[in-house]
Amino acid sequence: MKKSNTLVSSLWHLGIVLFLLGTTSSAYAQEKLKPLSIAHQGSFAIGGTKVTEPGTFELQNALKPQGQTFHGDHAYVFYQIPVNAHKYPLVFLHGAAQSKKTWETTPDGREGFQNIFLRRGFSIYLLDQPRRGEAGKSTVAASVTPTPDEQFWFTQFRIGNYPDYFPGVQFPKDSASLEQFFRQMTPNTGSFDGEVISDAVSRLFTKVGDGILVTHSQGGGPGWLTAIKNNKVKAIVAYEPYSGFVFPTGELPAPIKSAGLFGDLKGVEIPLADFKKLTRMPIVLYYGDNIAKEPTAVWNKDHWRGGLEMARIWAATVNKYVGDSTVVLLPEVGI
Amino acid sequence: MKKSNTLVSSLWHLGIVLFLLGTTSSAYAQEKLKPLSIAHQGSFAIGGTKVTEPGTFELQNALKPQGQTFHGDHAYVFYQIPVNAHKYPLVFLHGAAQSKKTWETTPDGREGFQNIFLRRGFSIYLLDQPRRGEAGKSTVAASVTPTPDEQFWFTQFRIGNYPDYFPGVQFPKDSASLEQFFRQMTPNTGSFDGEVISDAVSRLFTKVGDGILVTHSQGGGPGWLTAIKNNKVKAIVAYEPYSGFVFPTGELPAPIKSAGLFGDLKGVEIPLADFKKLTRMPIVLYYGDNIAKEPTAVWNKDHWRGGLEMARIWAATVNKYVGDSTVVLLPEVGI
Repeated sequence: MKKSNTLVSSLWHLGIVLFLLGTTSSAYAQEKLKPLSIAHQGSFAIGGTKVTEPGTFELQNALKPQGQTFHGDHAYVFYQIPVNAHKYPLVFLHGAAQSKKTWETTPDGREGFQNIFLRRGFSIYLLDQPRRGEAGKSTVAASVTPTPDEQFWFTQFRIGNYPDYFPGVQFPKDSASLEQFFRQMTPNTGSFDGEVISDAVSRLFTKVGDGILVTHSQGGGPGWLTAIKNNKVKAIVAYEPYSGFVFPTGELPAPIKSAGLFGDLKGVEIPLADFKKLTRMPIVLYYGDNIAKEPTAVWNKDHWRGGLEMARIWAATVNKYVGDSTVVLLPEVGI
Repeated sequence: MKKSNTLVSSLWHLGIVLFLLGTTSSAYAQEKLKPLSIAHQGSFAIGGTKVTEPGTFELQNALKPQGQTFHGDHAYVFYQIPVNAHKYPLVFLHGAAQSKKTWETTPDGREGFQNIFLRRGFSIYLLDQPRRGEAGKSTVAASVTPTPDEQFWFTQFRIGNYPDYFPGVQFPKDSASLEQFFRQMTPNTGSFDGEVISDAVSRLFTKVGDGILVTHSQGGGPGWLTAIKNNKVKAIVAYEPYSGFVFPTGELPAPIKSAGLFGDLKGVEIPLADFKKLTRMPIVLYYGDNIAKEPTAVWNKDHWRGGLEMARIWAATVNKYVGDSTVVLLPEVGI
């Protein structure tokens, strides 16, 4: 990191240590036994739009849409405020095909980020992004189809090359855990839209005030947009963002060739004035193992190689404008 | 109630008092300020089925379904266990167009059943039923369409006859609360299926052991099926069930004529041996105000008149077989 920043530095260590060591950390195992002391908890919808059908609502024709409204495209938020909370809450935005479940109990039943950070005194806000999970009301229509695709996701998420697990992978090998993992996915009820998502997340920051945004995977792109839209985002921790990287007009890098099944990776052009807003806060991007170092036909490893390469170009661009963005490849720091 | 039962009796009072008085109860207001002491909390998927596409999965054709699996039709469960919890946990099943949000913060920001019962020492299990919310993976396809229908729901749920509120209705009159209410609805991602839902809820009781099932509205039907499938359901509290009432073969009452927009109300025939399983536990059904006493063309009041009439026939049938089922109409008990 270019700037010294205690907040992000402690997040950096906390994130790595707790994420990877889990219950093998005896200090954490002891802490786990203690009750959580929650000063307040609750849920609400935030952001979104309203559609009104032309015409006049008539009580006797209440099943006709005329004159009726439809509220959609909001996020759902569940929050918990521990006793003696730190100043900055953590706002958690999940990735593709996921919900706030990402941050809750792990597939093998260990505590997830929700409990881990509550135990460390952080207020937590867990989001279901617009058009996902309990924020299912979408202003655009969708078809939900039960397409068998779980072996694809097993591979895409680098658990291994299905049916093989990667050597040393931390994901549990038992079938019950894998089943939990598959069942924690949940479909879009409307198309993915980074602007719609970041509008809602920005509204959340306006409501709760200064805080730290934690994103996973596909949530990375809406995360950058949120930080551009709202100066209450004081830091970003992004776990494996791979899409939606924004660049100043005229500075878009060439697409990165990839054997990944979603094809080559491209950035998104935005005005320089917007891009510069990403230099206001420290940003850390984490990537794990089993990412190729060189182009390869092994498509999952290559997909993430492309994502990591794009992330490094992006961080360098942010830092060129005197930002504070750091890419951490866990194997490079000995994890 | 026919049998004396301390458990249900206290639930009866607790439910009514806290539900209706909310923050106006000063004892509860004081209690609200205390931190929640949570011994453990987490989430998991329960129940469901697995579909496997014929053929062989090939790594290089991972976007084709051949040989891949799809896990769906499970419920999502979020649970919290307070310190020194009562013996029986409460399992909460929401109604139509809703999710576990039903039991969380109210539209005007007061604490919901989740916090209220945690403060009273009950473990709580909040469900998103199969094909809803974070349990969105459905083995049957669905279309999700943004149909403007909120003025219908306002009326159907007896907030009033839109745009008028019923006199004395407890629902807050400000627009922000109404917006929260509309945004807490979330669509089906597959057709409603009482058997699929009760299979999942039954699996939850098998996992957590003896407990009390609390249902809302459309959740009532799957609630009866759950209690038939699993003898760990030790009591049922049903808020305004209106559909899915089961009767022994040959004892189905005539459909109840109704001006409700969903038409006449019908029961469902099941074997007597199954029906008798509903006599094993105390059951309380609650209904609120603005339900017609006589048939009327005011369709929302008449819809619920039919539901209440069916409920009374149903409870009498359960009690005929020496069950313990009670219908409570709140205005009749002075609330």
